Amino acid sequence: VSEAAVLRDILAVLGTRPGVQVGIGDDTAVLAADPPLLVAHDMLVEDVHFRWTTHAWADVGHAALAVNLSDIAAMGGEPIAAVVGLASPMGALRSAQVREFYGAMEDLAKLSGCSIIGGDISRARETVVGVTVIGRMPAGLAPVLRSGARPGQLVCVTGRLGRSAAGRLVLNDPPARARPHDAELVAAHKRPEPRLAAGVTLARAGASAMMDISDGLCLDAERMALASGVCITIDLERVPIGAGVSAVAIDAGIDAAEFASTGGEDYELLVTVDPDLVPRVGLDLVSVGTVSAGEPGLVTLRHGRPVQLTRLGWDHVG
Amino acid sequence: VSEAAVLRDILAVLGTRPGVQVGIGDDTAVLAADPPLLVAHDMLVEDVHFRWTTHAWADVGHAALAVNLSDIAAMGGEPIAAVVGLASPMGALRSAQVREFYGAMEDLAKLSGCSIIGGDISRARETVVGVTVIGRMPAGLAPVLRSGARPGQLVCVTGRLGRSAAGRLVLNDPPARARPHDAELVAAHKRPEPRLAAGVTLARAGASAMMDISDGLCLDAERMALASGVCITIDLERVPIGAGVSAVAIDAGIDAAEFASTGGEDYELLVTVDPDLVPRVGLDLVSVGTVSAGEPGLVTLRHGRPVQLTRLGWDHVG
Repeated sequence: VSEAAVLRDILAVLGTRPGVQVGIGDDTAVLAADPPLLVAHDMLVEDVHFRWTTHAWADVGHAALAVNLSDIAAMGGEPIAAVVGLASPMGALRSAQVREFYGAMEDLAKLSGCSIIGGDISRARETVVGVTVIGRMPAGLAPVLRSGARPGQLVCVTGRLGRSAAGRLVLNDPPARARPHDAELVAAHKRPEPRLAAGVTLARAGASAMMDISDGLCLDAERMALASGVCITIDLERVPIGAGVSAVAIDAGIDAAEFASTGGEDYELLVTVDPDLVPRVGLDLVSVGTVSAGEPGLVTLRHGRPVQLTRLGWDHVG
Repeated sequence: VSEAAVLRDILAVLGTRPGVQVGIGDDTAVLAADPPLLVAHDMLVEDVHFRWTTHAWADVGHAALAVNLSDIAAMGGEPIAAVVGLASPMGALRSAQVREFYGAMEDLAKLSGCSIIGGDISRARETVVGVTVIGRMPAGLAPVLRSGARPGQLVCVTGRLGRSAAGRLVLNDPPARARPHDAELVAAHKRPEPRLAAGVTLARAGASAMMDISDGLCLDAERMALASGVCITIDLERVPIGAGVSAVAIDAGIDAAEFASTGGEDYELLVTVDPDLVPRVGLDLVSVGTVSAGEPGLVTLRHGRPVQLTRLGWDHVG
């Protein structure tokens, strides 16, 4: 079973009624309002998205909110409020852990200008955290969808990739001797930072398509190419790689550029823009590829020459 | 660990920022907007809220949306949209089950005038369903909170209680010979019907406090009394009991009125109103008690004479 297969079954039975501007399939849904309302819902599941052997309650709380804020960022929006569902073995849950979990969320909510306004708690055999964030577009801006990429545009990313994936490797298979950047890579993995300010800047500057990189640059680029009905070529040599990522990839026997382009959980923004926008947008935006016409959804990878990867990114269903 | 104790820890660390009209503690949160926005989030957890030995995927899908719509009803609001998180052992999940689950939600969404606009799916060891519903107040109406009950008012309920709890007993411990109402009690348990129309009618008619009966009339009345800073007296003899509930309770050796008042998952509305409202509201509203001044949160139960129950309702944490 793949995520895409389940999604097809879901879409086959759901209808939408008036008031829904964007339904399933983008980083957030969009409800018609003035300004438009954005709704994101992402879960973190024990042993799928995190492990108690390596993650603290504060890490899980932070990440559960951050990945949803990242979806709001990917539309160019601003978060308003979040609700939190926590299913967990409650018999083992101490007061300090509850405060640590919600406290880390509160810190990030405060920093992001939103409030945690409700939710639900239940006992369960394993921990599942579900967060819904409601946001809105800044006045006068339309949400930036995945479907707006146009031939002739550049494919760009914010920030440097592979840090979270490298941090995951360090956590799960600690090296005999710690490398200089290991600690910050682990922090990047445990505490992703949603690119809210960059998202608004890019929406305002006229980005044509945008999404966050959650499952790996290559897989997410494929989703954008499908939604936009275009081809995307990614030049792996141009992918900006985070400090310390190459050392971790090399020690694991993996090509660093491939590792950074498929590792996932970067929570940087993947965006398409007209070529003249890059120098004037005032962000550290790196062009990693191009949009062209052709078979919708085709992603071509180049690493000097055309390459094929066996895995483009992460699937949290299969 | 009790639900109330975890809630205290959560409230201790959370702050709210402008734009939040009602935070944690009512049936939904309320965001300041014109009209005000309502946000509800409730989870269903395998072996806590349902069992695969007795529930089909369609039952779980229906119920997960229904309990959230019931929260919208309890504010007097109208649902707009829902997002759905599904964590489940995906390897065992067949296409037909996915369609059954989302199809049942779609049926209820359509009936309720809202759309399922997004969500998340992940593999997990057990099934956890989290649903967030966003609603709004009808033009000109303010949300009806739990905190508005005033001394001298009547405590009323919509519908007849105990049907879901009786259905749960029938499901978990089937009788040797089926009684006449058993099948409809099981249906009431598996497929709760949110009282959306009644909620709007009561808000429009001037109900002072409202909530849905999810954990048992007595426990929910205690929550209302605490939120409103009043005493509530419930007269168990006046509690309207669903058809067939007494037979199930008697066979289980439980007093029928106590059973109907503590069984939970009724998803009827508990409401306080001025005495003159009951005959003119145009609903089958039954007065079961009174509001008085005194020790905030004190609930007195009468069954002919004052009685004390060892358990007022359900706690999904402890």
